[in-house]
Amino acid sequence: MKTKVRYAVMGLGHIAQTAVLPAFAHARASSTLAALISSDATKLRALGRRYGVDRLYSYEQFDECLESGAVDAVYVALPNHLHAEYTIRAAQHGIHVLCEKPMAVTEKDCRAMIRACERNDVRLMIAYRLHFEKANLSTIRLVQSGKIGEPRLFNSVFTMDVREGDIRLRQETGGGTLYDIGIYCINAARYLFRDEPIEVLGVSARRDTKRFAEVEEMFSATLRFSGDRVANLICSFGASDCAEYRLVGTKGHVRLEPAYEYAMELKQYLTTGGEPRELVFAKRDQFAPELAYFSDCVQRGVEPEPSGWEGLADVRIIEALYRSADKKKAVALAPFEKSHRPSEQQEIHRPPVNRPPEAVKSKPPSKS
Amino acid sequence: MKTKVRYAVMGLGHIAQTAVLPAFAHARASSTLAALISSDATKLRALGRRYGVDRLYSYEQFDECLESGAVDAVYVALPNHLHAEYTIRAAQHGIHVLCEKPMAVTEKDCRAMIRACERNDVRLMIAYRLHFEKANLSTIRLVQSGKIGEPRLFNSVFTMDVREGDIRLRQETGGGTLYDIGIYCINAARYLFRDEPIEVLGVSARRDTKRFAEVEEMFSATLRFSGDRVANLICSFGASDCAEYRLVGTKGHVRLEPAYEYAMELKQYLTTGGEPRELVFAKRDQFAPELAYFSDCVQRGVEPEPSGWEGLADVRIIEALYRSADKKKAVALAPFEKSHRPSEQQEIHRPPVNRPPEAVKSKPPSKS
Repeated sequence: MKTKVRYAVMGLGHIAQTAVLPAFAHARASSTLAALISSDATKLRALGRRYGVDRLYSYEQFDECLESGAVDAVYVALPNHLHAEYTIRAAQHGIHVLCEKPMAVTEKDCRAMIRACERNDVRLMIAYRLHFEKANLSTIRLVQSGKIGEPRLFNSVFTMDVREGDIRLRQETGGGTLYDIGIYCINAARYLFRDEPIEVLGVSARRDTKRFAEVEEMFSATLRFSGDRVANLICSFGASDCAEYRLVGTKGHVRLEPAYEYAMELKQYLTTGGEPRELVFAKRDQFAPELAYFSDCVQRGVEPEPSGWEGLADVRIIEALYRSADKKKAVALAPFEKSHRPSEQQEIHRPPVNRPPEAVKSKPPSKS
Repeated sequence: MKTKVRYAVMGLGHIAQTAVLPAFAHARASSTLAALISSDATKLRALGRRYGVDRLYSYEQFDECLESGAVDAVYVALPNHLHAEYTIRAAQHGIHVLCEKPMAVTEKDCRAMIRACERNDVRLMIAYRLHFEKANLSTIRLVQSGKIGEPRLFNSVFTMDVREGDIRLRQETGGGTLYDIGIYCINAARYLFRDEPIEVLGVSARRDTKRFAEVEEMFSATLRFSGDRVANLICSFGASDCAEYRLVGTKGHVRLEPAYEYAMELKQYLTTGGEPRELVFAKRDQFAPELAYFSDCVQRGVEPEPSGWEGLADVRIIEALYRSADKKKAVALAPFEKSHRPSEQQEIHRPPVNRPPEAVKSKPPSKS
């Protein structure tokens, strides 16, 4: 099958409006935007008009959408706590799923999602956009080339100042720093070390108990990997924007800043033998590559990577970290096998979305 | 008394030879190098000749040196586990003490040192060179000016690749990453937050069990301060040189890299309102200011800052961190009052030591 994959995009929040919907223009060879699903009729009307989409559905009409015969895949950009339910329902209707990260709030839900997609023979991919992004993938290659020697420690800071009332600050919808931004640091540690942690330790903190009544303001985490490599990260919803990681090896170190952003250029700073070197990676569309790749997997009937197992790998670490912070002690992780790791072969280039469209009834998460 | 303060420098390892001894040339208005104390007769002879010092003593002749009438103060650059004993003995002879950090290996020893110096009415200072250094002090001022808003989190990476056999890798001499380099990160978190941590959590790791048979290869630490501010640091003796910290506030962030070095220029990177700004602080002699300041305190009979209490404040945190790593759980710290904090008023400028002298029978700690 080489016909285009027809997507329903579900959940029309900030990321869907500013990044996912515009990305279809850069994935048009294989992917079309066929339907929109939202609880908000105003958004549906306005965005349907903007993108020329006339299949507009409420959450209650989800099954109707799946059964319409006009949709092959659903892009799940819902609040985190709804990922599992709607992924499973889509799978049960034979519809493929490209699901935003975090995959779900619990490992249990992740497993149910994987099972449902396997049973119904549909593709499941978790939207780790950096697995297709050049700065991160070239950092992986650089590390694997031995340029910085053996990687020994990873350190990351990821912070933003989230506005009061943002969904990220709500417990019941799966909010919290680790699910939203810490997951980038955890995922980066995993793709740079190419391994899974065996023990984790976390500390959470909050000062402003009004804004952070339901989820922590910040979280500091230490992850121990095999070979006694250590990843250390701190993320916050209550500080100015910063997104950086550094990997220190026996012969040098490499730093990315910004490391995780999609709306600007990324920079890589390498130091070997005391000599610094700087590389700039121009801004690019990080969402279209996901659509193009996922459509290709659907068309060819192959399992995508980042898979559900990749999503689960992060979620189980996040759950362990919150447990650790609650108990104020280290939590061991069960062995977890993951043979596939992101590599430069996965890079897909698309030009940047230069003027992101104006969002309809949606605010960016950050104050700045 | 405005006569020059006459120092005996005790312990002629790398730091004494490459930094402390040459610094006397930049502190000559108030300080003279009057004696050398070492267990190594070759070093004594060679360095005595180099600096025109004829009072040369072995450790066994320490009391003789103190009683010679030719020495007012001793600069203790001994292995960490000997700081307490020789500080106390000097105090008992009415000799002032400028002691390298870490002040001692245990809080108990720190308290005994403070007590001995108080009882004998001698000055005691701990050699925190960055308390006189411009890049760090101007970062303190910048933070206090409110430029980055309220400081919420501190993150630091300090790594070096210590050669096998180095004293830092020996347990009985008070080795370990926290005592040697982690102390800089802890001290920086304290002078930037201007507070003491109330709870700490540590993780230690080691892979190469030959090189790191006695002390850990690396240590990741999280310190919780009042107002739920968090400091996160990772230090290593088994990775390439890196020395950085970042303080993230509600309105911006500031980063120093290198942050802790004495043999090169330091750089400050400030980001506010998304705009980056870079400041370079030229290389300078960071040791002569300590001598000049301490001599002034001795001459005027005033208590120096960084005091013994400043030294103790770090050591008690380090002990708590090692306890935490052993128990794999958080350790609470008792309240600790410290009213004095480093500020820009303490800055003392001295020109750089451009060609550090060749060391006699002493290797730098790092392989690189």
